Amino acid sequence: MDLGIMERIKTAIVGASGYTGQELLRLLLLHPDVELVAATSRQEAGKALSEVFPRFLSLPGAELPFIEPDPDAIAATGASAAFLALPHGVAAEIAQALLKRGLKVIDLSADFRLRDAAVYKEFYGHDHPAPEMLDDAVYGLPEIRAKEIREAHLIASPGCYPTSILLPLLPLVKDGLIDAATIVANSMSGVSGAGKKADVSLLFCECNESARAYGVPKHRHLSEIEQELSIAAGEKVVITFIPHLIPVNSGIATTTTAMLRKGVDPDAIGEALEAAYADAPFVRLLGKGGCADTKNVTRTNFIDIGWTYDERTGRVLLMSAEDNLGKGAGSQAVQAFNILFGLTQTDGLHFA
Amino acid sequence: MDLGIMERIKTAIVGASGYTGQELLRLLLLHPDVELVAATSRQEAGKALSEVFPRFLSLPGAELPFIEPDPDAIAATGASAAFLALPHGVAAEIAQALLKRGLKVIDLSADFRLRDAAVYKEFYGHDHPAPEMLDDAVYGLPEIRAKEIREAHLIASPGCYPTSILLPLLPLVKDGLIDAATIVANSMSGVSGAGKKADVSLLFCECNESARAYGVPKHRHLSEIEQELSIAAGEKVVITFIPHLIPVNSGIATTTTAMLRKGVDPDAIGEALEAAYADAPFVRLLGKGGCADTKNVTRTNFIDIGWTYDERTGRVLLMSAEDNLGKGAGSQAVQAFNILFGLTQTDGLHFA
Amino acid sequence: MDLGIMERIKTAIVGASGYTGQELLRLLLLHPDVELVAATSRQEAGKALSEVFPRFLSLPGAELPFIEPDPDAIAATGASAAFLALPHGVAAEIAQALLKRGLKVIDLSADFRLRDAAVYKEFYGHDHPAPEMLDDAVYGLPEIRAKEIREAHLIASPGCYPTSILLPLLPLVKDGLIDAATIVANSMSGVSGAGKKADVSLLFCECNESARAYGVPKHRHLSEIEQELSIAAGEKVVITFIPHLIPVNSGIATTTTAMLRKGVDPDAIGEALEAAYADAPFVRLLGKGGCADTKNVTRTNFIDIGWTYDERTGRVLLMSAEDNLGKGAGSQAVQAFNILFGLTQTDGLHFA
Amino acid sequence: MDLGIMERIKTAIVGASGYTGQELLRLLLLHPDVELVAATSRQEAGKALSEVFPRFLSLPGAELPFIEPDPDAIAATGASAAFLALPHGVAAEIAQALLKRGLKVIDLSADFRLRDAAVYKEFYGHDHPAPEMLDDAVYGLPEIRAKEIREAHLIASPGCYPTSILLPLLPLVKDGLIDAATIVANSMSGVSGAGKKADVSLLFCECNESARAYGVPKHRHLSEIEQELSIAAGEKVVITFIPHLIPVNSGIATTTTAMLRKGVDPDAIGEALEAAYADAPFVRLLGKGGCADTKNVTRTNFIDIGWTYDERTGRVLLMSAEDNLGKGAGSQAVQAFNILFGLTQTDGLHFA
Repeated sequence: MDLGIMERIKTAIVGASGYTGQELLRLLLLHPDVELVAATSRQEAGKALSEVFPRFLSLPGAELPFIEPDPDAIAATGASAAFLALPHGVAAEIAQALLKRGLKVIDLSADFRLRDAAVYKEFYGHDHPAPEMLDDAVYGLPEIRAKEIREAHLIASPGCYPTSILLPLLPLVKDGLIDAATIVANSMSGVSGAGKKADVSLLFCECNESARAYGVPKHRHLSEIEQELSIAAGEKVVITFIPHLIPVNSGIATTTTAMLRKGVDPDAIGEALEAAYADAPFVRLLGKGGCADTKNVTRTNFIDIGWTYDERTGRVLLMSAEDNLGKGAGSQAVQAFNILFGLTQTDGLHFA
Repeated sequence: MDLGIMERIKTAIVGASGYTGQELLRLLLLHPDVELVAATSRQEAGKALSEVFPRFLSLPGAELPFIEPDPDAIAATGASAAFLALPHGVAAEIAQALLKRGLKVIDLSADFRLRDAAVYKEFYGHDHPAPEMLDDAVYGLPEIRAKEIREAHLIASPGCYPTSILLPLLPLVKDGLIDAATIVANSMSGVSGAGKKADVSLLFCECNESARAYGVPKHRHLSEIEQELSIAAGEKVVITFIPHLIPVNSGIATTTTAMLRKGVDPDAIGEALEAAYADAPFVRLLGKGGCADTKNVTRTNFIDIGWTYDERTGRVLLMSAEDNLGKGAGSQAVQAFNILFGLTQTDGLHFA
Repeated sequence: MDLGIMERIKTAIVGASGYTGQELLRLLLLHPDVELVAATSRQEAGKALSEVFPRFLSLPGAELPFIEPDPDAIAATGASAAFLALPHGVAAEIAQALLKRGLKVIDLSADFRLRDAAVYKEFYGHDHPAPEMLDDAVYGLPEIRAKEIREAHLIASPGCYPTSILLPLLPLVKDGLIDAATIVANSMSGVSGAGKKADVSLLFCECNESARAYGVPKHRHLSEIEQELSIAAGEKVVITFIPHLIPVNSGIATTTTAMLRKGVDPDAIGEALEAAYADAPFVRLLGKGGCADTKNVTRTNFIDIGWTYDERTGRVLLMSAEDNLGKGAGSQAVQAFNILFGLTQTDGLHFA
Repeated sequence: MDLGIMERIKTAIVGASGYTGQELLRLLLLHPDVELVAATSRQEAGKALSEVFPRFLSLPGAELPFIEPDPDAIAATGASAAFLALPHGVAAEIAQALLKRGLKVIDLSADFRLRDAAVYKEFYGHDHPAPEMLDDAVYGLPEIRAKEIREAHLIASPGCYPTSILLPLLPLVKDGLIDAATIVANSMSGVSGAGKKADVSLLFCECNESARAYGVPKHRHLSEIEQELSIAAGEKVVITFIPHLIPVNSGIATTTTAMLRKGVDPDAIGEALEAAYADAPFVRLLGKGGCADTKNVTRTNFIDIGWTYDERTGRVLLMSAEDNLGKGAGSQAVQAFNILFGLTQTDGLHFA
């Protein structure tokens, strides 16, 4: 689908100077149906996109200057939609301001992912900044909520770890194939997942030749993982999730295990995945024994999913891989945007 | 302890041209109580150690030439001990030949790790080459079998993954603190673990910026892990183990989860680890919440172990880190050698 | 430009299973004006592209099976053009066979880069396999030979190092701004430049945490560098070139120094570059003091060029960066293909 | 040599929380003739060394707490010597204070490397903080200044790049074998060379998969390189030096080119290096054609040097590799310390 220059959707990115912002810029500058009309950054305001990101030099549109994140200024560009790539706690206020001004908002922070403000407080350590907005937000996992996304004004784009854990699990939990109480998810993430922060622990020499768990036992992303699993299961699900940091720029590989429910044929696992994702252009099923590798999905919107069954222990193993900045953040948000605006789901994302 | 040049223990390394062989060379060339008298390599026979490994240039002893792996030639050097760093299936024959010639053998292959030849066949896919020898071999995990090692002639040095999984788990399984049937171990290994093989899948460009599971659901190392856990538990234990390959040269980070047994105080976990390793110079306990990082243990014989408890799920989390070539192979074998020959356990290994 | 499905140029890739082949596949599968009709690989014949390169899974066209490199079979697909990503010495024969069958050939090997078969023999160590063809081949550096490319049947696509060295130097040598006898070029290349070979020296653990010169003092690429510089200078030019291997997947950073000619205003350097590349869509000039970084050009067809002048020594410094698989190989060949077939130069290459 | 515990040299490290400080800690904690009595860090004061550097956990001495950099407190420990690993401009003051209190000082900053305060100002951009001290400082390159080091009170340990450039060049310049005006040095450094600073440009994701020149054309280290070359040449030498940043933790590979003087036999190059370093335990000559690789020298005090001659251009090529934190900083300073205190030069540095 090509809307033609006259009809391109005017779009803004708020908070565009971090790694997720950079990925959104890359995607939207090249998106055939989008006209990028604003990109904000307090720190870089006044500089051209290409000055901050020399990789974009000579790309059409990359001479656009960063502006301050002022809602009126953003609305004045005529933008119909805004992507927010801001820290949690900060996104809510600007989301509200932009919604009031008639923009549709795709928020990549955690601010609108949870339905329950109490859970937000439990996991994020402070009161939710705008609890009254939670009911209107859609948890924008496109493979699961396409219908709701289509009618949304405010989309909460899922977290990187949750996407890699939920997509393999949701069909199995929904169909009752596994015992949800036995789920253990181990993820390994590239360093870009920690953001573009001047922090000694993220220096090259601190991360290179290093591998370690962190954030145990209660990483913030658990809250949205359990919320979505509970919805699928029809009952409260609590799981174990252990994130690890490894020396790659981007990519998340997740291995999830759970006990197969008694009496279930192991082949039902593969069948449930096939059925759930038959029409999902960005889910690539690697079949039984397939071990997903992050190098096959980096810089794309794909998630690769393999699985196997260990008859010795009765456990199902799910191996998934995605790009934490892609399907785990930027390109997944664009996928939701495409659905929201009635575009073809793959527009601007074909082998991004 | 310094034995003096006259009394140094004459030692050979059989199969010294791979990554484990290189680590053994590094350690033994510098070991104060060892005189390296032979290093074998079919491929490099005739070349000096320092020619094959330029890193060793100008190191005393590094002008020694590689020789063919001939038992008579090795015995003729007067060696009292031999380390075998050979592929499984190949080690057994030369071990037998060297034992007959009066050498003590520390074998780093899998050939003598299992007590049961049938389990060997199940996991390694062929008949055990010398099942009659299995009874005489000691599974040489120094923290657990120091007494047996002291009296052994044939030591089977544990695998890299098993070491990282067993040391955190054994005290808990032995004390019955966790439900062994719920154990799930996820490990991430550096690429040196795959050996120094001309294999496209191990090329820099194939491994860099990549992370993936492999060898599921029944990696060969499961056999020795389950053997040792079963001994500790006093009953058959079967677990889930998922190895992953990540782009670091060396290092294994393992995260293991299991359900705390009903009624057990979570603090018993820390206490059991403290009690088990109070006198273990190479086990460093990081305490509750400690997340072991491979970068702190590479090129050493240390294993770092942290743990935590997730009260939401009832699971214990164990995070361990070691060097797959160090505590997972070469330096652990030297530690066993030290015990075997009545040396101080840390000789030649102090912050190797 | 979009030719429409009916008019797409049928194209083959011969030798498509290596790193350059993979890059050509990536580009041509997505090229709007190309229909990929054949990809050959002796080793992978019979397998789908996506089986060998799981990254391409679900990409339109990626189910095409690799075939044997048989000229008749290739011609039978109706291909109008073939890219050859074969080792030097092997490409000549198949090039000849395809040219006879009416295809246009873009050869990425070194076989047709040199005008003089004697120089080929000097640098490649054996007689040229088809010296009679050298006169008909065009050294396909698009920024310099667009006109000749347009009329060519056989294009010899430049080597990776030569591209990174020639593009900054040629305008300066042509204008006589520097003393060509003082040129020293230092390049650092990613490991993919060495090809996808099962070679111990290319293993992850051999290349990671390593940096070194190699191939001194007479790397094969010197021959084409000096040929092109000599043409530009109007006299024989001999230079020093030192390649280095560094642990990145792809990318070449080159720093070249030369003495400014007496009496020349240093600013003439910048002006000559600006004039030469004013209309070159893939040359990005970073200006005086600009230090090109490989991370800004990987996976693109861009070459970034910065320069500075050291008044203390009188030397000009040129800093360039390109992707060795992109502007140094695959995408540069596609750029030449675009010119050859009268397409817009940037078709299928826009921020590839 | 083992001085015995009673006679160990009490030693302090001032500024021990950065990468060079960490390397000094590693070396001095294990040095048989040293008792580490103080380590300072404003930022980490009060914490144990092993808390800041978990790698040192359980190492004897690693429970020492960091203290504030107070000269009286340092002197009160009874220290005979202090290593300074401080930023330039900061080191001078504390050096003066410690010298007054009778300590010998090995300064790893740039503060005392230059004999001429005017050159300091030219390259460092501000007045020298203590010009009157410059005459008393010895530029502590052990292979060149052993005699002066032996009698010094204040040693200025050379910079990392200068060491890698000077050691190959000095014998050739001294013997007049090359034309010093034609020297061009290209270096590639690991990221630790930039220090342990919370700086976005040093983040893992900024440095990984990146290679680039920086600091051209007048890097600060040029000042000491040219000073020492000029002394060796007996006349003012000005050279071109281009540093590059590459994604390795540590290591510098330098390739230096220069024209062979007319009439000089190329083999004189190898002979001059052999003669100069016959008794230098840390210089490893790789001979003609030897390409030094950083991976062979990391974590050691070795510098590897190879060379070749290009008869086509008349240029000599020198390829050197060292660890920027080792021979380029920490271990080289310890080597000078050993000489200063009459110890064997290799004490505590044997294959560090």
